[in-house]
Amino acid sequence: MRAVTMYGPGDVRVVDREDPRVIEPTDAVIRLTGTCICGSDLWPYRGAEPADQLLMGHEYVGIVEDIGNDVKTLNVGDFVVGSFVISDNTCEICQAGYQSRCVHAEFVHGTIGTQSERARIPYADGTLVATPGMPDDDVVPSLLAASDVLGTGWFAAVAAVAGPGKTVAVVGDGAVGLLGLLAARELGAERVIAMSRHADRQALALEFGATDVVEERGDAGVARIKELTDGLGAHSVIEAVGTEESMMQAIRSTRPGGHIGYVGVSHDVQLPGDELFFSQVHLHGGPAPVRRFLPDLMDRIWSRQIDPGRVFDLTLPLEDAAEGYRAMDERRAIKVLLRP
Amino acid sequence: MRAVTMYGPGDVRVVDREDPRVIEPTDAVIRLTGTCICGSDLWPYRGAEPADQLLMGHEYVGIVEDIGNDVKTLNVGDFVVGSFVISDNTCEICQAGYQSRCVHAEFVHGTIGTQSERARIPYADGTLVATPGMPDDDVVPSLLAASDVLGTGWFAAVAAVAGPGKTVAVVGDGAVGLLGLLAARELGAERVIAMSRHADRQALALEFGATDVVEERGDAGVARIKELTDGLGAHSVIEAVGTEESMMQAIRSTRPGGHIGYVGVSHDVQLPGDELFFSQVHLHGGPAPVRRFLPDLMDRIWSRQIDPGRVFDLTLPLEDAAEGYRAMDERRAIKVLLRP
Repeated sequence: MRAVTMYGPGDVRVVDREDPRVIEPTDAVIRLTGTCICGSDLWPYRGAEPADQLLMGHEYVGIVEDIGNDVKTLNVGDFVVGSFVISDNTCEICQAGYQSRCVHAEFVHGTIGTQSERARIPYADGTLVATPGMPDDDVVPSLLAASDVLGTGWFAAVAAVAGPGKTVAVVGDGAVGLLGLLAARELGAERVIAMSRHADRQALALEFGATDVVEERGDAGVARIKELTDGLGAHSVIEAVGTEESMMQAIRSTRPGGHIGYVGVSHDVQLPGDELFFSQVHLHGGPAPVRRFLPDLMDRIWSRQIDPGRVFDLTLPLEDAAEGYRAMDERRAIKVLLRP
Repeated sequence: MRAVTMYGPGDVRVVDREDPRVIEPTDAVIRLTGTCICGSDLWPYRGAEPADQLLMGHEYVGIVEDIGNDVKTLNVGDFVVGSFVISDNTCEICQAGYQSRCVHAEFVHGTIGTQSERARIPYADGTLVATPGMPDDDVVPSLLAASDVLGTGWFAAVAAVAGPGKTVAVVGDGAVGLLGLLAARELGAERVIAMSRHADRQALALEFGATDVVEERGDAGVARIKELTDGLGAHSVIEAVGTEESMMQAIRSTRPGGHIGYVGVSHDVQLPGDELFFSQVHLHGGPAPVRRFLPDLMDRIWSRQIDPGRVFDLTLPLEDAAEGYRAMDERRAIKVLLRP
């Protein structure tokens, strides 16, 4: 089969790889019908993480082609959405809603790689969720978004305790930030402030329900958030970048007692203990336990209540993956969908 | 009046200071009947914070001697307990339960100083709570503990979401850690693990309801907590020290999705963003909003349901404050009560 491999920073190739097959009785093999490039894929692409023949891709939808003998909830032919972290969904950590830290957790990125034609998914019952039937073409991008970028934005909004009566600020205008904003509105937040200086992203933010846009960043951005919140700061802040600057912007934009949901993969961040201590914020985040949210998110998409697939503004065949990486790296695209 | 002033590291003196009087109409002047030395007073005593003629003391009980014209809930002659942070208890931040970050917040430490015979308390209605009558002598130490050390331990347990079915680990065996442990038990925690290597503190921990004692610290302490929790870590961890080592011990002892309540005043702490991100813990803490908890804590003490005053193992006249500081610095005493 054909699959995307990163040979080094900036060096993405589509190469031949052996077709996967069922190994463990809890495995499923799926034929991918949609996959995509994640903002986090840009970290190794830009040299901020090692990239030595990395099997790329961790967001996916597809059709079950084969299952092991112990797979109970899926059948060959099912259309499925999967999480970017493998989980058994039965251990104590999973049952508490933290499937991203399942005792059997494994990142799809790097070891499985779903920017490919097929993938072997371990713990298929605990990782994949089937749709009620074959989806119409127009909801496939949204189902694909649920796999990570929507699930991650949703987790950020939940971690930030976005809800009725709350003012939510969103640091980061990538696909995760934009979908965190959509999640905050869906969860009932009264006011959602998008922090963005890019016209295309601002437009999508407003479409997803942003009530305000703040173009300033850093200290000036914090000052604007304070101005908009009677000097107190936002109740809830979603952090979707992963740098020290964005984390401090989030912490300083949050009122005492408020909540930060941070999902930008942390790179070179050191948080000063004293400032955090006196800020009195709640801090929670990490790799999103997407599996917790998948059934609910898939329902909302299936009923066309939400359309998170709007974040895909470029669709390419899998063979053109390298161009997709370039487009995202150069910010010519918010998010790239690849068709295997 | 006589009052404790710190002139520099290790240099604590009891000196004459002008008697306070009502200045603002929301002030009260109280005559202190009990005050004490806090673990946090040792930071400047040991040179880890500036100490240039610091007015010491922020824990206090006493009798109202005078009130301003706008004071509504207190009368001259009332016995009162106060928080270590001044608060109006009416602003939006106070109403959300974060009186320690009231828009009018002021630390009693350093500017007011209650290791003294009298004190002027601004925003008296929002800071002080009166008892139903004159307390019996035996409950006065417990009421004094409510002012900070119990209120802080309680906040830590609440921030760590201690409760039924939970296993709670406590990092730090000072008075705050010990009372955090008591709070966790009062809040219904099933199992409470005291991390302590001092026999006297272990004994008090067991008296307050600890179910386990772990003597190891650092990585070995983390390994023991994991052993005691099926390899997963504690659901809830109370951090009551304030060093980077203790914070990392807390983070590493907590299971994914678990909660840390940290109340040790942070000194020279840098938290690594990546480890925090992948830990998936909830982090919340800071200066405790004691005022939120005071009415409930005072009820529990008044009805003799809890006896947090047990943490005081040395009582001295105010004039002997310097000896009290030495005793705590040398760990000869857990907590020193001073009688003005």
